[in-house]
Amino acid sequence: MTTSPALPAAVRIVEMGPRDGLQNEKRLVSADTKVELVRRLEAAGLKAIETTAFVSPKWVPQMGDNAEVLGRVLAAAVPGVAYPVLTPNLKGFEAALAAGAKEVAVFGAASESFSRKNINCSIAESLERFRPVTEAARAAGVRVRGYVSCVAGCPYEGAVAPQAVAEVAATLMDMGCYEISLGDTIGSGNPASIARMLEAVMRRVPAARLAGHYHDTYGMAVANIHASLQMGVAVFDASVGGLGGCPYAAGASGNVATEDVVWLLNGLGVGTGIDLDALVDVAAWISAQLEREPASRVARAVLAKRAQAGCA
Amino acid sequence: MTTSPALPAAVRIVEMGPRDGLQNEKRLVSADTKVELVRRLEAAGLKAIETTAFVSPKWVPQMGDNAEVLGRVLAAAVPGVAYPVLTPNLKGFEAALAAGAKEVAVFGAASESFSRKNINCSIAESLERFRPVTEAARAAGVRVRGYVSCVAGCPYEGAVAPQAVAEVAATLMDMGCYEISLGDTIGSGNPASIARMLEAVMRRVPAARLAGHYHDTYGMAVANIHASLQMGVAVFDASVGGLGGCPYAAGASGNVATEDVVWLLNGLGVGTGIDLDALVDVAAWISAQLEREPASRVARAVLAKRAQAGCA
Repeated sequence: MTTSPALPAAVRIVEMGPRDGLQNEKRLVSADTKVELVRRLEAAGLKAIETTAFVSPKWVPQMGDNAEVLGRVLAAAVPGVAYPVLTPNLKGFEAALAAGAKEVAVFGAASESFSRKNINCSIAESLERFRPVTEAARAAGVRVRGYVSCVAGCPYEGAVAPQAVAEVAATLMDMGCYEISLGDTIGSGNPASIARMLEAVMRRVPAARLAGHYHDTYGMAVANIHASLQMGVAVFDASVGGLGGCPYAAGASGNVATEDVVWLLNGLGVGTGIDLDALVDVAAWISAQLEREPASRVARAVLAKRAQAGCA
Repeated sequence: MTTSPALPAAVRIVEMGPRDGLQNEKRLVSADTKVELVRRLEAAGLKAIETTAFVSPKWVPQMGDNAEVLGRVLAAAVPGVAYPVLTPNLKGFEAALAAGAKEVAVFGAASESFSRKNINCSIAESLERFRPVTEAARAAGVRVRGYVSCVAGCPYEGAVAPQAVAEVAATLMDMGCYEISLGDTIGSGNPASIARMLEAVMRRVPAARLAGHYHDTYGMAVANIHASLQMGVAVFDASVGGLGGCPYAAGASGNVATEDVVWLLNGLGVGTGIDLDALVDVAAWISAQLEREPASRVARAVLAKRAQAGCA
């Protein structure tokens, strides 16, 4: 028997639904729906909502309305809420800046094969491409968040060395990223491998500047978040309704659902400032828009209980 | 940062699919399918398979073929595999014994309201009803496993006091149960509340005689198993394909899926003796029999990856 380590008193959740959640949807979602999704997430208490991506519409047609969506979201921005957008290169950054972005995100992979197959360059080359973005962002007073993908495993290489993750994370921090989000892109991590990865990363980057971005492909995300909390990580990325499948296994789940994370944190007595019931309403609403059931266990259980209320 | 406590080197999984998994299925499943399910589970490496329940077919029609199923399973029993059956009273025990049972299970709730609403008697009265069962079992050389339900929460009372769980668990042990399975019947537990419950129980019952039986209603089961492993629990109940919904919230998930548990344990380097690929095949097969998709994330991800193999 052991005494559990103290957990953070509060956690910040960075909502991925409008961007990571929707980007692989085949059917185009209207800008109206995307803006409405952001508005409903704000109302549920989310304070950081990744809103869109400034990538080529040739590669990601779903994000083709990025300037319109960001512009409309920012036109009625809620004070205290951040609306980061993904900007993989200088062209994307300039478009985001023109649309009013105050925060952007860049990403690097911890796996050479993943980097080469996905963005056709080495890890080192990809990081060098971000340098002009981070420099331009600093000049413009725009905050930059950094993602590291494949922190636990890679679809091409299998397990990824914790040291490789630490190296990319440290480089992104040195370039000026205020926070490094560690992405288990294919969801292959477990509480032990995530803890080993975090130990290596924390030798280079303080826990206070780290976020966990765990996919629930194999149902491990909640356990991985709990393990990360025990190591002092206090920021987690999540996607309402579990939006966003796994691009490497169609039919499998993607981002951990925001409501599953909030349920865990409520149970652990860790504050989030998010209203779980309102969040489940958002999950039900966006899932209905996409004509499917919410992927999250919490949304399904809460909605089923509501449907039965009165018959107990 | 903390060093993780040592985990057990190996875990025993008690498969619940044929009993807890199927008992709430509305459409009757044939005895042939039930026996075939047990055979496929044995072939995947399961060493303990709860096979059926000796309860009144008036209350649980799905288990009406209990004697036939157990008889056929035992007629070709695999050496080293246990086939426990649920026997809530002496009448059920005698029928199970007549059908050849070598192991039975009894259950008590840790919540007074749950006990009264479900079996129409107090906790103390329900435990007294099991005394003749455990005495008859001892006389017949039959092993008895004890379940405690509602160890983290109750649908009527909310949170359940760890001390109440410890009391029921200790009573079942004193009656002669060789193992006490702690059931989070409504899945409302989280790693912190499960740890508090286990701490209280372990003051009365040694960890080596405890099992975790966690439902995944709110997606917490894998995290709860990880927390329990860290406290020395080395036996877990699970249901292939996540069979078995939550009777208190139709549409919500029930038992944690066996393949999710095996995936976690494989990742943690904890032995189970179970072949994960073969287990996913069983999940796919029984789900097809029931005309649905497997509920488990691991089964869905593995099956999706298999379907894509060749297109990478």
